[in-house]
Formats: sequence, C-alpha cells, structure tokens
Amino acid sequence: MAETDIATDETNRLIASNKVEGTAVYNQQNEKLGSIYNFMVDKRSGQVEYAVLSFGGLFGLGSDYYPLPWDVLTYDTEQGGYVVNLDKSVLDKAPRYSAGNEPTFDRDYGREVYGYYGVGYPY
Amino acid sequence: MAETDIATDETNRLIASNKVEGTAVYNQQNEKLGSIYNFMVDKRSGQVEYAVLSFGGLFGLGSDYYPLPWDVLTYDTEQGGYVVNLDKSVLDKAPRYSAGNEPTFDRDYGREVYGYYGVGYPY
Repeated sequence: MAETDIATDETNRLIASNKVEGTAVYNQQNEKLGSIYNFMVDKRSGQVEYAVLSFGGLFGLGSDYYPLPWDVLTYDTEQGGYVVNLDKSVLDKAPRYSAGNEPTFDRDYGREVYGYYGVGYPY
Repeated sequence: MAETDIATDETNRLIASNKVEGTAVYNQQNEKLGSIYNFMVDKRSGQVEYAVLSFGGLFGLGSDYYPLPWDVLTYDTEQGGYVVNLDKSVLDKAPRYSAGNEPTFDRDYGREVYGYYGVGYPY
C-alpha cells in the first residue's frame, strides 16, 4: 500500500476500508503504537463502532487487538498515518482481545471500551 | 477467508471490514454478481456510505466498481454471501468507476448513486 494512495483518498470526504487496514498508528510523541487491523461495523446501520488497532506479535502472530472508538483516531498527513492521543501506558491497560478470542460486541462491551477512552457510547 | 469465519462474525451485531472484503454477492436468482471490494467510510462520522461491489475483469484487473448504498445488501447465511435484489440488467446501467478513476465522493455523487437504487440519501 503506497502512502500516496492514502493521501489521495484523504482529499475526499470518504476513506476506503482496505486502504486504512495496515496503516500505521502513532501517538503524539511519534512513537508507533501499531497499525489498523480492521473496522467493526454495525450490520444494520453501517456505522463503524471501532477501528481496531493491532499491536505486538510478529507478522500478526500473537498480536493483541485493541478496539478504539472512531473519534479517537486522527489522520496526520505529515506522519503518513493515524495519530492518537494515547500513551503506551494507557494501551497497557486498555480493553483488548487475541485472535480467535473476539469478545461479544454488545452494548455493555461498547460502554466499557468507549468509557475507557473517556468517550460517550452513543449506539 | 473461510466462510465459517463470516458465519461466526454474523452472530454478533458487528461485522469486520476485512472479513467482508472478498465476500461474494448474489442476486435473488442466485446469480453471482461479483464480490465486495471495500467500504467507503465518512472520515468524520465513521458512517459507511457505500459497500463497493467489484465485478468483471480477471483477478481484479479491469474490474468495475459499483458503490452500493449500505441498505441494499443483505447477508444470507444459506447462500454464504450477500444478496441484493438487483437484476444484472440494473447493474449494467448502474453508477460505476474503474481502478484509478475513483469519483469525487461528494454529496451530489451520493444523491446520484442512492437515487439510482431508489434509496434516500441521508448524509
């Protein structure tokens, strides 16, 4: 995936899911936290409830998956990736799951995750 | 991508973008129309405005891309894919683009696409 593709996409109101998957995520200290693994989308409404950050492991093996509220992510054209205002120490305690152990994405889980990041859960 | 993965995901309220990408799309006559290429997502709100159907070409070369309003797609567990109530003749005239010729996804374009499928454009 070329970064120019992402940049081109960013001139539009919309972004393509398959362009975002694999994009690096940094914190505001320019430390790479991980990369976007996928989006979790409400089947009925089409609303993205989480952008999932993958972090740790080698080539995705043993990675942990951190569901992030959409609003936590900001695209930074200078950085060529997404930026979140999160310290690594915050991620250390954040809600996560491993491959094959996905949680039930119900509203209790939504309130837990959004609450952890200090964001109201509107769904 | 194993179909069992999709089925597992379908027990939840949410679906994973990377599981949907590549999933077959059928019409109600069980004809395969193509497959889901990606989602186009509003950067600010996280709302999926289109599920993009790819159709034609060999291994994605020369494919055309048909943006579909989210509500046009229904997941069919029996079929193991998405089902849309569209004849191939409808797709023949539908709004589309080729790789590298993506439209500007502005609201005029949204009204055109949603209007073609008889769906109000709410964004």
